[in-house]
Amino acid sequence: MRIVVLAGGIGGARFLRGLKRAAPDADITVIGNTGDDIHLFGLKVCPDLDTVMYTLGGGIDEERGWGRTDESFRLKEELAAYGVGPEWFGLGDRDFATHIVRTQMLAAGYPLSAVTEALCDRWQPGVRLIPMSDDRVETHVAVTLPDGDPAAGPAAASGAGEAPSGSGVRKVIHFQEYWVRLRASVPAEAVVPVGAEQAKPAPGVLEAIAAADVILFPPSNPVVSIGTILAVPGIREAIAEAGVPVVGLSPIVGDAPVRGMADKVLAAVGVESTAWAVAEHYGSGLLDGWLVDTVDAAGVERIEEAGIRCRAVPLMMTDVDATARMAREALALAEEVRAV
Amino acid sequence: MRIVVLAGGIGGARFLRGLKRAAPDADITVIGNTGDDIHLFGLKVCPDLDTVMYTLGGGIDEERGWGRTDESFRLKEELAAYGVGPEWFGLGDRDFATHIVRTQMLAAGYPLSAVTEALCDRWQPGVRLIPMSDDRVETHVAVTLPDGDPAAGPAAASGAGEAPSGSGVRKVIHFQEYWVRLRASVPAEAVVPVGAEQAKPAPGVLEAIAAADVILFPPSNPVVSIGTILAVPGIREAIAEAGVPVVGLSPIVGDAPVRGMADKVLAAVGVESTAWAVAEHYGSGLLDGWLVDTVDAAGVERIEEAGIRCRAVPLMMTDVDATARMAREALALAEEVRAV
Repeated sequence: MRIVVLAGGIGGARFLRGLKRAAPDADITVIGNTGDDIHLFGLKVCPDLDTVMYTLGGGIDEERGWGRTDESFRLKEELAAYGVGPEWFGLGDRDFATHIVRTQMLAAGYPLSAVTEALCDRWQPGVRLIPMSDDRVETHVAVTLPDGDPAAGPAAASGAGEAPSGSGVRKVIHFQEYWVRLRASVPAEAVVPVGAEQAKPAPGVLEAIAAADVILFPPSNPVVSIGTILAVPGIREAIAEAGVPVVGLSPIVGDAPVRGMADKVLAAVGVESTAWAVAEHYGSGLLDGWLVDTVDAAGVERIEEAGIRCRAVPLMMTDVDATARMAREALALAEEVRAV
Repeated sequence: MRIVVLAGGIGGARFLRGLKRAAPDADITVIGNTGDDIHLFGLKVCPDLDTVMYTLGGGIDEERGWGRTDESFRLKEELAAYGVGPEWFGLGDRDFATHIVRTQMLAAGYPLSAVTEALCDRWQPGVRLIPMSDDRVETHVAVTLPDGDPAAGPAAASGAGEAPSGSGVRKVIHFQEYWVRLRASVPAEAVVPVGAEQAKPAPGVLEAIAAADVILFPPSNPVVSIGTILAVPGIREAIAEAGVPVVGLSPIVGDAPVRGMADKVLAAVGVESTAWAVAEHYGSGLLDGWLVDTVDAAGVERIEEAGIRCRAVPLMMTDVDATARMAREALALAEEVRAV
C-alpha cells in the first residue's frame, strides 16, 4: 500500500511514527512543509523537515518534540556573546550540523529535495521524505506588536512630548518569530506563505500523489503546515484528482488545539477552532474522510452533512500505541470511503 | 610608541602577550597572516587571526595554544556522522560561532578587515588586529603523498596486475592539510601563497607601517606566516622603506623550531634550520636587528657580518614574564639600531 502523508512538524512527525507501526509494510511518502523554513546565521534551517527526520530516525528530543536528543547550546551562547541573534530560536550544537550540511549542499547547487534525501541517508526515517517544493517559501504573519516589543522599534515621535498612543505597531514578521518569539501572544491578522504562488512542487511530489492508494492529513496545523503545502500550485489539484481516499485527523479536540497554537492562525483565515470547522475549511472537494475525537462526537453529523465521512475516535497521541490506533482508524476510514 | 608586529598564529600570539606586558602603553598594530585561512563546511576559518584574538582576549585554550578554552566538539562529531569532513581539522562548538559570524558578515559584503574589527569588539585584544589583506590568499604545499594516503586516491592502474610502483602521488594540498592532517610528515617540495601576488594590503596596513616607530617579527614561521605577509605586494617594500628599526626574533633555537615544524617549510625554500640562516633569508635589506637564543650565540658574529645587528638572549616563551623579557630585548635592540 502506498500512503502519502502531508506533514508539518511535531504533530505530523508523531503521527507518522504511529502510522509506521500501524502499517509496517506500507510505502510511505511524506510531503513536508517548508513554509516555516528560516535563514538563521547564514544557514538554511528547515524545522518541519528536521522534526520528521529526527523523530522517525530516533534522533529527536522526546521531551521538547523538536531538536536533537542530548543537546547542548554552547554555539548559540557564543553567538549571543558576539551580539548575534536571534536568541529566541533554539539551535543546538548537534542540530547545527544538519543546517551546516544542508547549507553547504544548497550552496553547491543541490536542490532541497536532493539535500533532504542525503540527510535522510543518515537518519533512515523509514519513509520517503520530500519537501513540498525546492523553491523558497516562507510563511509570514501580519501582527500588531505591542508598544515596547523589541521588534516594534522606537516609539513614534509624537508632538509636545506626549506619550505614544499605545495602539501598537503593525508589522509583517516571519512565522517563526510569531510562533517561537511571540508564542502567538498577539492575534495573527493575516498569514501569507510568501513565494508559494511561484513555487513548483518538488520532484516526486505530484508523482507520489498520483501513485498513492491513500492520502492522509495528520493532525498538523491546517493553516501553516498542511495549508502551506496545499498553497503550492498543483498539489491541492493533484490530491483532489488522485481518485483515492483522502482522510484527515482533526488537530482540534474539544475546541482547542491538541498541541501548539493552531487556534491563533485559524482565526486569521476566519475559521473557528472546532473539529468540524477545520473539516469544512478543507472541504469535501479535497477531503473524503475526517476523524474527530470522541469528545467531539456531536460534530460528526454536521461534518457528514458537509459531504465528508466522519468517525469519532480517541485522537490523543499520548504514546506510539495510541497513535498507531489513530492511524489504523484513519486507514480503516479510507477503506470505507473506497468501498462506497 | 607605535609598534607594528607581523604575526602568525600561536608563536605570534604568545609573543604579543609578552609585548603587551613589556610595553603596556604602546599602540600596537598587528598585521595578521591570512594565508592559512581555509573554507570548511562552507565557513571561512582564519586560524591565525583567531589565535591572536583568542590569546590576547583571554579566550584561548592555553594547553593546545589554539581554539577556545573549555571547548567541546559535538557539532564536528555530528558532521562526521553525516559523512562530512574533514575530520582532521579541530573546530569546536564554541569556535564555530566565530566562523559563523565571520561568514555571515562576509556574505553581507563586509571585507575581512571590517569583520575582524567587529569580532575584536567582543574580545578586546588590546591591539589593533588587521588581516594582511582583504583578498583571498591561501597557502598551498606541493608534496608527494605516500601510496595509501587517503588523499592520494586509488592506486594507479598498472599493467599485468603489477603492484603500483610505490613512488607516491605528487599533489598540491592546502597548507592546513599539510600541517594538521599530515603533520608535515612528508617534505614540502614547494610552498605557494596562492593569490598573494594579486592581493592588496588591507586598509590600514601600509598606513600602520608608515606610522610605526618600531616593526617587529615575532618568532613566527618565517615561510608560511611572516613570509606570506611579506608576499603581499607592497608590504615588504613599505617595511623596508619605513625608515624605522625592524627587529626579529629567531623561531629556531639550537637548529630546531621552538614550536611547530618550521624546519619542514624552510627546506622547501632552500633555507636551513638555523637562527642565522633565517636572518639571512629575511636579509639586511629588510631586517635591522635579530635576536637569537643564547644557545645560538656562536652565530651572532655571522649575522652581524651579514649587516644585521644581533644579540643572543633567552628566547623560550615559557611564560608571559619570560616572553615580556624577550619583547623588552627586541625593543632595546630596536633602540640600539635607531641610535646608530
